Amino acid sequence: MTSNSTGKIFKVTTFGLSHGTALGAVVDGCPAGLDLNPEDIQIELNKRRPGTSNITTSRDEKDKIEILSGIFEGKTDGTPISAIIRNNDQISKNYDNLKNNPRPGHGDLCWKEKFGNYDYRGGGRGSGRVTIGHVIGGAISKKLLEKYDISVTAHVIQIHNIKNEEKMSLDKIKENINKNNVRCSSLEVAKQMEDEILKQKQEGNSVGGIVEIIIDNIPLGLGQPVFDKLDADLAKALMNIGAVKGVEVGLGFDSALITGKEMNDEYYIENNRIKTKTNNAGGILGGMSNGMPIILRIAVKPTPSISGIQNTVNLKDNINSTIEIEGRHDPCICPRLTIVAESACSMVIADHMIRAGFINPDKI
Amino acid sequence: MTSNSTGKIFKVTTFGLSHGTALGAVVDGCPAGLDLNPEDIQIELNKRRPGTSNITTSRDEKDKIEILSGIFEGKTDGTPISAIIRNNDQISKNYDNLKNNPRPGHGDLCWKEKFGNYDYRGGGRGSGRVTIGHVIGGAISKKLLEKYDISVTAHVIQIHNIKNEEKMSLDKIKENINKNNVRCSSLEVAKQMEDEILKQKQEGNSVGGIVEIIIDNIPLGLGQPVFDKLDADLAKALMNIGAVKGVEVGLGFDSALITGKEMNDEYYIENNRIKTKTNNAGGILGGMSNGMPIILRIAVKPTPSISGIQNTVNLKDNINSTIEIEGRHDPCICPRLTIVAESACSMVIADHMIRAGFINPDKI
Amino acid sequence: MTSNSTGKIFKVTTFGLSHGTALGAVVDGCPAGLDLNPEDIQIELNKRRPGTSNITTSRDEKDKIEILSGIFEGKTDGTPISAIIRNNDQISKNYDNLKNNPRPGHGDLCWKEKFGNYDYRGGGRGSGRVTIGHVIGGAISKKLLEKYDISVTAHVIQIHNIKNEEKMSLDKIKENINKNNVRCSSLEVAKQMEDEILKQKQEGNSVGGIVEIIIDNIPLGLGQPVFDKLDADLAKALMNIGAVKGVEVGLGFDSALITGKEMNDEYYIENNRIKTKTNNAGGILGGMSNGMPIILRIAVKPTPSISGIQNTVNLKDNINSTIEIEGRHDPCICPRLTIVAESACSMVIADHMIRAGFINPDKI
Amino acid sequence: MTSNSTGKIFKVTTFGLSHGTALGAVVDGCPAGLDLNPEDIQIELNKRRPGTSNITTSRDEKDKIEILSGIFEGKTDGTPISAIIRNNDQISKNYDNLKNNPRPGHGDLCWKEKFGNYDYRGGGRGSGRVTIGHVIGGAISKKLLEKYDISVTAHVIQIHNIKNEEKMSLDKIKENINKNNVRCSSLEVAKQMEDEILKQKQEGNSVGGIVEIIIDNIPLGLGQPVFDKLDADLAKALMNIGAVKGVEVGLGFDSALITGKEMNDEYYIENNRIKTKTNNAGGILGGMSNGMPIILRIAVKPTPSISGIQNTVNLKDNINSTIEIEGRHDPCICPRLTIVAESACSMVIADHMIRAGFINPDKI
Repeated sequence: MTSNSTGKIFKVTTFGLSHGTALGAVVDGCPAGLDLNPEDIQIELNKRRPGTSNITTSRDEKDKIEILSGIFEGKTDGTPISAIIRNNDQISKNYDNLKNNPRPGHGDLCWKEKFGNYDYRGGGRGSGRVTIGHVIGGAISKKLLEKYDISVTAHVIQIHNIKNEEKMSLDKIKENINKNNVRCSSLEVAKQMEDEILKQKQEGNSVGGIVEIIIDNIPLGLGQPVFDKLDADLAKALMNIGAVKGVEVGLGFDSALITGKEMNDEYYIENNRIKTKTNNAGGILGGMSNGMPIILRIAVKPTPSISGIQNTVNLKDNINSTIEIEGRHDPCICPRLTIVAESACSMVIADHMIRAGFINPDKI
Repeated sequence: MTSNSTGKIFKVTTFGLSHGTALGAVVDGCPAGLDLNPEDIQIELNKRRPGTSNITTSRDEKDKIEILSGIFEGKTDGTPISAIIRNNDQISKNYDNLKNNPRPGHGDLCWKEKFGNYDYRGGGRGSGRVTIGHVIGGAISKKLLEKYDISVTAHVIQIHNIKNEEKMSLDKIKENINKNNVRCSSLEVAKQMEDEILKQKQEGNSVGGIVEIIIDNIPLGLGQPVFDKLDADLAKALMNIGAVKGVEVGLGFDSALITGKEMNDEYYIENNRIKTKTNNAGGILGGMSNGMPIILRIAVKPTPSISGIQNTVNLKDNINSTIEIEGRHDPCICPRLTIVAESACSMVIADHMIRAGFINPDKI
Repeated sequence: MTSNSTGKIFKVTTFGLSHGTALGAVVDGCPAGLDLNPEDIQIELNKRRPGTSNITTSRDEKDKIEILSGIFEGKTDGTPISAIIRNNDQISKNYDNLKNNPRPGHGDLCWKEKFGNYDYRGGGRGSGRVTIGHVIGGAISKKLLEKYDISVTAHVIQIHNIKNEEKMSLDKIKENINKNNVRCSSLEVAKQMEDEILKQKQEGNSVGGIVEIIIDNIPLGLGQPVFDKLDADLAKALMNIGAVKGVEVGLGFDSALITGKEMNDEYYIENNRIKTKTNNAGGILGGMSNGMPIILRIAVKPTPSISGIQNTVNLKDNINSTIEIEGRHDPCICPRLTIVAESACSMVIADHMIRAGFINPDKI
Repeated sequence: MTSNSTGKIFKVTTFGLSHGTALGAVVDGCPAGLDLNPEDIQIELNKRRPGTSNITTSRDEKDKIEILSGIFEGKTDGTPISAIIRNNDQISKNYDNLKNNPRPGHGDLCWKEKFGNYDYRGGGRGSGRVTIGHVIGGAISKKLLEKYDISVTAHVIQIHNIKNEEKMSLDKIKENINKNNVRCSSLEVAKQMEDEILKQKQEGNSVGGIVEIIIDNIPLGLGQPVFDKLDADLAKALMNIGAVKGVEVGLGFDSALITGKEMNDEYYIENNRIKTKTNNAGGILGGMSNGMPIILRIAVKPTPSISGIQNTVNLKDNINSTIEIEGRHDPCICPRLTIVAESACSMVIADHMIRAGFINPDKI
């Protein structure tokens, strides 16, 4: 029982792989009446598009969106929105040595053993390129959430050992991350991060980091208790992104280090709205939003595609073997991954907004 | 669209709350032919049962299981297994002040605003008592996994600032955690942890910690790429447990601090089986198991039920207010939560074993 | 992947079988705030209860409902509503010859081969007694639909070759079916039907019939086009009832006999509401309700439990064999099945009312 | 909560509408390793393609399939198979009068009221053209079932009042239906049916009929008791086809006219296989296949698009109104609908084969 769909009401199904004909997504369950144009999706795709700076892979894909269905006279019509992107800049010959020698740190071995008939070129459907589907779904859900003044913002707060600890307003974060290639809110730290990434790239190495996601203006009571808690669904969506090895909400792992008296966020009323003095919970209690901003952080591992010889096994001959990976890769996936993280969270929030009755499922 | 079910093929639906008539679960999708007795479930329930040591709540519940359906002549018969536990030791009067004053750190406010008609006694269905349903589902899935020599073990590795860094074999961990109330694998550190918990209890305070889960003997290729990755489903299941604020797999957040060359787990063949020299990935690559043990860690926040006056709001009068929580509570939920974490992971693994065709869905 | 749940938002999971400890249902997804008492369910259960007249089985079950969860202060609280009924009047010895000799017309053979470990007593979970779960779910959904003035009424229109062709108002139908044991709207025809059933009973034979279901006051636009059409979901729900061999909507099979000019229902406006002059479509067009009453009919086969020797096979010895069925059975299941049909349809309508946004999913 | 997906494991999502850019489907859950070429799908699409004979609409669509993903080296690779067809021969101007005047017998009114933003051209997603998605999913599932020697065959047994009562072997039926435009197994009756259709066409009228579906070589125990009975899932799939107003299995509605002694199919053993002497049950008992051929029949209403003035309402002005439908339409949809019925049933059977463990979900 494979699963290339996400969401229960706002449901996104994706398809396609690194070196096939096309990649795409079908969004079923977006209410009718939402203004939507190809450009709304293209803007988001451009943010994750490779080849746009010296810290991404040099694979040059235009990633031009084509919407096939679901829009009538500039608005969603309640039928499935399908959109595709054709692959262009494929260099398949680079990947021939991968046929029987799984790359360490990649899912190659698992894919090959699980499905037998595995498209090893460029990682097949295990490729980061598959997140194009996430971004299509994300762009449409973002557009829907905008109608309700909800924003989802991801920014890089750590690359390797370089941390951004500068605090600023959400508006300022949103502004600054578009001003640098790393998508870090501090322009100064961004420069250090970029230098670190380039240094690792020159050494044929790679680095990871930490991305923070801020979801703002969520109504109280989003999320479903027990088995579809809002933080659980967000954690799942984020862990479904290739390189993510950890997720935390609010204080996260640091909450283990303080006491209950320090942890509890006390309530007060301001302008007739209930708020908490602190936000250690990260906006979610009992699996439901409490009206405060939702704060999540994800750990992103260093890109597994590195230079140099690595030990592996030859699956055909069943012997120890080595592999040297060629092709074009990102020395650090964090900057481009921010868009995917925003997409993943936006789809979850859109789904829960409809599930909790805040958005009408048929038309808005 | 509420959600009190988990799993896609091995599906568990739970019901009941802290102060109602009964709690229970229905397990639909367990194949026929599995030996199962009430005692198999009772053993697991006893591990999470309150009132068994001085570091748990003094609420004394026998938690006696009654199986209502699904077993014929000592084996599962392919029909839904339903089981219930009746509530006994309820002291409802303790909770009257909670009616309009939501407790900080609890989901009270969210429940009340979301559903309107909210059973505020003992946290209602937001109570930790609700995990009885998880444990029923967990016990049955554990029994199923045992047939395939798969084990799921959770142990406490940190309470407040006391960490257990002692390394030992999985067998030794399994043995030791049953020898102390904290369920820590080091008997020495367990003592320190217990002291710390008692100290906080005396101060009317609470602490959290970190629990590690080890899933052993998983076949290669479990998990479904893209939107039901194995780590994503495990993360969701664990975040669905009340006090959990973070989940990581393998190196988790520490993977942000090393380079690709350090992170990648290189392959080799031993006894005709493919292994990795390190297990930084924690047994999962590309969302699928790679045959190595699966290692997860969760951050558990300090129990929000603490002594002393806390600031809150009165929802009836819409004014700032205070609350003092009475009732009986755990000063640290980590030890009892280990059983719930094992249950949550077992249900996910059982579900994926059937989904990937390793277990026949109808009968074994 | 077994399936003992129905519905996508208003989700009902049932369990239990003919000779086990208890039968029951869990309703997850009923919004909070609905007045609900055990008596609301008991009334419906009493309608399907055996032993109430000379045309039903003499098995005497009190079928007393116990609600275990989901109600707080007389209203649903948004958490799963679970309810059970304990089996009492079981005579297991009657069923010993069924162990290896599957009864013709029953699912015995399929159950046995599929699940291996099969509770052959009284048909196990293939028994009509299992519809207790349907009726629990149906009673709760009916209560929900009443708030929106929607009614679901099933009445017997044919038993064997005796047809009721008398036309009357829906109110009159509702009144009359409670006045006779057959649940036929014509008191005169009901008498003939009852005579026919008793005649067949005396001969150790059985008969079937046709039941019509009328769903009144449905808003326009219920149902989801393409793969969850309203008539498709209703047809599935009705075919899921044991003895049903056919379902039709509106003119049904007779629509094959007329032309498009005769079939099309023309629109007109009356009291500012759009109506159709005829209702050949049975209230559904393109899979969505068009505002007219929904009319369905189902074919119910004669009860397969009959007297006399029947040919079968012995599964243990793999040879031809015979069987003589004892036990207590209904000579005609149609009257009691009306309640199950109402339940099945009510659950579908309640689910679709929430799915289409006519009922808030969290609270009403 | 719209629903453009069908199936639980073998899951098909469709998109597109009559006058949009493209129509298509995504098949998720087809195991890897199945031989599949575009031609396999094209063959099926050609059977439903319009413009191929004088009894279908004159709309001339090439319906050329393009597979975008999911095939690697001629076999399925376990990732979603997506395929599209671009619309070509659209004449949009014909449909302008439909904007505010819903056509009787069509879903126009329901679509418009439900979604507001409705693509009225050619029926939008309510058009029969949407079944292209069904046929793509059907073609792939047929290819999968062929590996297990399972065949699904639909043939026309009645058009208006002309019935085909000639009995013949399944092989002969399969052969003959390809020899005439009506897809009737009797070449003689086919001629009469064709004449009747042409006669109605000349009168600007339309007719319906009855289609029978035979599913052969099904293993014993397919289908899931209680809420996903095999006949219930088949009934739903068939009722999801636009013009279908009734479904019956085995004797269907005629089973109401006989007694239990006549209805029950007695068992016997032949060549070590359990069979029944009659097949009144139509191959399904208790919701599970009993090993005999599955026999279903569906009632197809006359095409609602007819010539002449019909009464309707003007939704803009909220007054009574009339409409005269132009455009190109099928005078009888039965022949082309046989392919859609085969597709619908094939998808259900493929799904249940995996659900019951007869086909491995990951690879074959």
